[in-house]
Amino acid sequence: MTTTALPLGPGQAVLAIDVGGTDTKAALFDSTGTMLGLSRTPTPLCGTGTADAVLHRVRELRMQFATDFPDVPPHALGMLAPGLVDDDRGIGVLSANLHWSNIPFTQLAQDLLRLPTTFSHDVRAAGEAEFRLGAGRGYQNLVVLVIGTGIAGSLFIDGHAYSAGGFAGEIGHAIVDPLGPVCVCGSRGCLEAIASAGAIARRYHDRTGIKPDGARDVLLRSHSGDPDAAAVWNEALDALAVSIAQLAAILAPEAIVIGGGLAQAGDALVVPLRERVDALLSFHRRPVLLPAMLGENAGLLGAALRARDLLDAKLIRTDVHA
Amino acid sequence: MTTTALPLGPGQAVLAIDVGGTDTKAALFDSTGTMLGLSRTPTPLCGTGTADAVLHRVRELRMQFATDFPDVPPHALGMLAPGLVDDDRGIGVLSANLHWSNIPFTQLAQDLLRLPTTFSHDVRAAGEAEFRLGAGRGYQNLVVLVIGTGIAGSLFIDGHAYSAGGFAGEIGHAIVDPLGPVCVCGSRGCLEAIASAGAIARRYHDRTGIKPDGARDVLLRSHSGDPDAAAVWNEALDALAVSIAQLAAILAPEAIVIGGGLAQAGDALVVPLRERVDALLSFHRRPVLLPAMLGENAGLLGAALRARDLLDAKLIRTDVHA
Repeated sequence: MTTTALPLGPGQAVLAIDVGGTDTKAALFDSTGTMLGLSRTPTPLCGTGTADAVLHRVRELRMQFATDFPDVPPHALGMLAPGLVDDDRGIGVLSANLHWSNIPFTQLAQDLLRLPTTFSHDVRAAGEAEFRLGAGRGYQNLVVLVIGTGIAGSLFIDGHAYSAGGFAGEIGHAIVDPLGPVCVCGSRGCLEAIASAGAIARRYHDRTGIKPDGARDVLLRSHSGDPDAAAVWNEALDALAVSIAQLAAILAPEAIVIGGGLAQAGDALVVPLRERVDALLSFHRRPVLLPAMLGENAGLLGAALRARDLLDAKLIRTDVHA
Repeated sequence: MTTTALPLGPGQAVLAIDVGGTDTKAALFDSTGTMLGLSRTPTPLCGTGTADAVLHRVRELRMQFATDFPDVPPHALGMLAPGLVDDDRGIGVLSANLHWSNIPFTQLAQDLLRLPTTFSHDVRAAGEAEFRLGAGRGYQNLVVLVIGTGIAGSLFIDGHAYSAGGFAGEIGHAIVDPLGPVCVCGSRGCLEAIASAGAIARRYHDRTGIKPDGARDVLLRSHSGDPDAAAVWNEALDALAVSIAQLAAILAPEAIVIGGGLAQAGDALVVPLRERVDALLSFHRRPVLLPAMLGENAGLLGAALRARDLLDAKLIRTDVHA
């Protein structure tokens, strides 16, 4: 793909806040779509008080942007979080890392900030940015697979995001090998337990006693002739290929966009993956495999898109009732 | 489930013809939704001339119904076939058994019969009937899994049938065990190669040299203490459970309806399957597993639904332009 990512483009100014398990990223998008004041601060982790602490951090961030960019008041907030999220109802259903369950973030943030708010899942929002502005542009049926510490996906079906109340797209927790290793989720043989960046580093450590500097280090060691690194890396590629073949059989997406930390391996990931997927499929429609285009700020772009969608929807509703 | 299937209900009279790999079934549905003159005749298999022979058989059937039910002229035809079918464009993309590729059946049948026609996939049409009139009623996100000689599924996403140009729903050809047996499709470890009624009978035969009287006979032998039959049956259940767990992770349907010949095993299939699926899942949303309700004529009902939808769409279009 030689296409360039679309910029966000013109629209109303919106605030985007991506609450991660470690850091919280925030940025303001002005009416031209330009990203302003990108910041990254530690997410306040306060046990069962984390949801409250996060909301107060969101308010602080909003005030900071008001001070720094007084001429760009945002008209809406797009807020993201990991875990199980019900995008349609704006609820943080469950996050083990952030110690919350069933928090109505959309409502709470709106009340606290007096700003129209959308609250949605970080990976799905990043996927939507790739779908609308990035590598997935032009496809109607698309999967965006994010391979980092864990693995999650977002599904686009006949042109629309599909989330099934937050439960869909858990491709990292679909079984690729019934006799495979036990996953952190408690199931056996999940893709994530074999092929996430976290699993690759852990499995190399388990195998050799040597702690690698992440999955990338395992790949480098594999290129240097380390047979253990090669075995771990190849098992990850095999598992990813099985997963993509399953997606081809069940959903038959036209394309699969691969993002997240592991995707930075570039051709070392995508080229052998294409070969393996091709070997596994028969009559199935072969999905085009594409590297993600938007990088680590895809989530913020997705949050901004959703915040603007909210304003557009309100506008339409106002028109209808006028 | 103690609910009763909905009848087709009132609407325009339509003709439904389900062209199978062995037999062709046909019926007329009158304006009350009553099924008239259900017939089953051998599908004319004429090598590369099969598509033409099928179209002429469709015309003969239409004339026969005109003779038998002169007071019930159909206003549209719903025609079904197996293989790879593009429902939206009405094209028989590929059928190895029926020796055709890229046949524009909707257009050809319309020209031959001078009757508005829909042409769609047999399993998807049967699935749609379960979705709209049968066990899947009331669910927005549903998979209908048909387990017979082969295994295929139909997907309903946010209330709409999803076919991806005919390629989606090939659950029988998604990998459940990367080291499993080679499938007829050429891939390895497909669900269909382990858990279809055909595979169960074949695997028992391979294991014992005894040719069973179908999958049901293998189940009966298993109940009589035959360890080979129990092993084959349990491997099929395990593979089906892995497949359902994959669907739960990827699509998170609220329910999965199980139909086809193997579903006639009833509780002997569904009860142990529920237990196995439950054991495989962790945080995933657990789909309700339901036996299909409409029986072997689900396909004809689906064809009738689609033929009536076509007439309704034409009516709406006429209204718009009036």
